[in-house]
Amino acid sequence: MVAMEDGFSLEQSTVGIVGLGLMGGSLALALKGKCARLIGFDTHPPTLELALSKRIIDHASAFPPAGRVGQSPYRDHNIDLLILAAPVPAILDILHQLPTANYQPALSVAEGSPITILDLGSTKREIVKAMSNLPANFDPIGGHPICGKEKLGLENADPNLYRGAPFVLTPLARTTPRALDIAKQLIAAVGARPVEMTAEEHDRILAFTSHLPFLLSSALALSTPQEFAPLIGPGFRSTSRLAGTPAHMMLGVLQSNRDNLLSALQSFRRSLDEIETALQMESPSQLELLLEASRSSYHSLTDH
Amino acid sequence: MVAMEDGFSLEQSTVGIVGLGLMGGSLALALKGKCARLIGFDTHPPTLELALSKRIIDHASAFPPAGRVGQSPYRDHNIDLLILAAPVPAILDILHQLPTANYQPALSVAEGSPITILDLGSTKREIVKAMSNLPANFDPIGGHPICGKEKLGLENADPNLYRGAPFVLTPLARTTPRALDIAKQLIAAVGARPVEMTAEEHDRILAFTSHLPFLLSSALALSTPQEFAPLIGPGFRSTSRLAGTPAHMMLGVLQSNRDNLLSALQSFRRSLDEIETALQMESPSQLELLLEASRSSYHSLTDH
Repeated sequence: MVAMEDGFSLEQSTVGIVGLGLMGGSLALALKGKCARLIGFDTHPPTLELALSKRIIDHASAFPPAGRVGQSPYRDHNIDLLILAAPVPAILDILHQLPTANYQPALSVAEGSPITILDLGSTKREIVKAMSNLPANFDPIGGHPICGKEKLGLENADPNLYRGAPFVLTPLARTTPRALDIAKQLIAAVGARPVEMTAEEHDRILAFTSHLPFLLSSALALSTPQEFAPLIGPGFRSTSRLAGTPAHMMLGVLQSNRDNLLSALQSFRRSLDEIETALQMESPSQLELLLEASRSSYHSLTDH
Repeated sequence: MVAMEDGFSLEQSTVGIVGLGLMGGSLALALKGKCARLIGFDTHPPTLELALSKRIIDHASAFPPAGRVGQSPYRDHNIDLLILAAPVPAILDILHQLPTANYQPALSVAEGSPITILDLGSTKREIVKAMSNLPANFDPIGGHPICGKEKLGLENADPNLYRGAPFVLTPLARTTPRALDIAKQLIAAVGARPVEMTAEEHDRILAFTSHLPFLLSSALALSTPQEFAPLIGPGFRSTSRLAGTPAHMMLGVLQSNRDNLLSALQSFRRSLDEIETALQMESPSQLELLLEASRSSYHSLTDH
């Protein structure tokens, strides 16, 4: 990685992570030894205690951080890069709080540069819009690592969660080359691979690759009678796995991508109709054609 | 396991397995050392060679077995239990061939008892119906182990595939207690757990727990644009995994369970409609209720 002119180096920087759940906690674990200092913020005191006792972070702070009006908790820590690792509605709240007096972050003392803000939210249009209203002492960029698992929380954090995963970056018009460089250094440090696109592209694609599968899993779990549990096998487990995601994690995601998700659903229904018609018409050759096309699509989508 | 009056013991018996793919091959591996002799039948000579060279079976025979009219290939082997481990249409073919002269099996020389026929097919009504027409020197019982993986073939066979899996048995009116005992000894030997029910119940349940998930995975893979591949994550992989199953494995299954599958699809569409309506109406509380209900259903279906 070529260092930028003002020479940001992750190794010498202080990184703040707001939200020490599965994503934030795994990021902290993966960053261990790769930045100068890790500050963890969380609303849940036992999570901060666990993170400190396991030395996942160097310093803990409640969130929202306490402090006198006009005094910045971030200034106290000289944070260079602040990562928002929370569900979409919480990220939107944090972005709205950041500019108010009590949370007004200082310029980074070390660099004289604005604090880089990177989020890990699952939809990007609303977040990038909220980021565009931040004052000039913030240098925001949208992000979304495409990884995770259904068991959430710091206790399930995994230093290898990000390894090999695509990590989408959605720069704003105002995002500086420096912030993009910082985000890419972070992505390289945790072993992910950066994929740049607009927030609009991201949300349109993720409607198909993430939000639609979640809805299908949920509808499958909802429609299957409970008394069939003894005959559940690995196929059903796999197809319905996403229905295990807590609703509060997904509500904000689905609502902030409603338009794209509704149109992905329409497209899914057309494919399902085609398959159902072939089955109803007792047309094995047409059914076989459709299933072969599905299988070949599955392989080109996932064989990489 | 209490031995039956005529004292069938798996340890002393000769087991034939017709079809050495993933299911038959894994069964053979799991039976290693637990029966007197294993005879493998397959239409594909290299599969038989592989099975012999890896000592998965003791003796190999082409299928359909060659032999003079009136002479039974099964008589030569004194097979006590013949397991049909093939796709549903192939099992139906074999069941239709068994009574013809060339394939007329002899009574088991050792026992003077009819040959027990157990199949591993994914739907049961058509198979049990075909079994009911077998002559009296066969003692048939339907079976369906609820396990598997998407990578098929003997090269992916796994001695632990059956361990802990439900293994459905669908006895016919004519099935003897002896055949039921033999099937249960087999199930115990491979570490699975027997679940008895009628072929009708089995097919109604499996429409939801297996065939519907396959159709949803397939429709998802079919409707997702290929260019979205770089952003595929673990959620999509899991929901679409069943779409990787070869169509020729599923066609016969879907067609032999069309009525149940169409009504499971209707039930799924009602749940999907409910979720979609809540999303469209911008009703977060209704959407949250439905997603929480899905999650709780998912857990009671799969947490065991």
